Amino acid sequence: MYTPIAQTPEPPYYVVVFTIVHAENLDGYEQMGEKMVQLASEQPGFLGLEYGIGDVELTISYWESSEAIRQWYAHAEHTIARDMGREKWFQAFKVRVARVERDYEFNRSVSE
Amino acid sequence: MYTPIAQTPEPPYYVVVFTIVHAENLDGYEQMGEKMVQLASEQPGFLGLEYGIGDVELTISYWESSEAIRQWYAHAEHTIARDMGREKWFQAFKVRVARVERDYEFNRSVSE
Repeated sequence: MYTPIAQTPEPPYYVVVFTIVHAENLDGYEQMGEKMVQLASEQPGFLGLEYGIGDVELTISYWESSEAIRQWYAHAEHTIARDMGREKWFQAFKVRVARVERDYEFNRSVSE
Repeated sequence: MYTPIAQTPEPPYYVVVFTIVHAENLDGYEQMGEKMVQLASEQPGFLGLEYGIGDVELTISYWESSEAIRQWYAHAEHTIARDMGREKWFQAFKVRVARVERDYEFNRSVSE
């Protein structure tokens, strides 16, 4: 069954937890976000993405390696987008790069 | 400045990315979720939590060590809650346990 949970391989792989608190002015933010998701998904080593919003905005992206993440952060368009975010859209953010050591899952339609 | 971004120490520390797709019947789910957040926050090694919802529900929790996470997963009330979730509230989920290797942050009120 399709689920919006990212399909990732057996560990080890990498996750980037990008946690954002927005500033007040979000003009152009959604378009930039969509563009960055599209661009990220075209990068070497990209595995998938999950997204949610609450008190913070969470973008969880999965990658084959730490090096793939470094290359994506060095991508020119991504660098420009982050600079614009600091200037306009972000009150605060934190980025955490982590190596997935183990995972497990449940899927009702498989287990029944 | 206070932000809802979890306050975590210098890496290394651990993150659990818990990604859920809900089933249709969510009776009792919110109460159980609140209870589990409260209980998790009282566990040894708990560092913080971030939450968001979109196509999936994301609960991101931070921990001092892999062992602290194992102990929380073995906690009797947590085990019962997960069993109830599989029975009633979850269509699918994935849990990923990852070691945070590096992080960085931005805070407008600090940088200005």
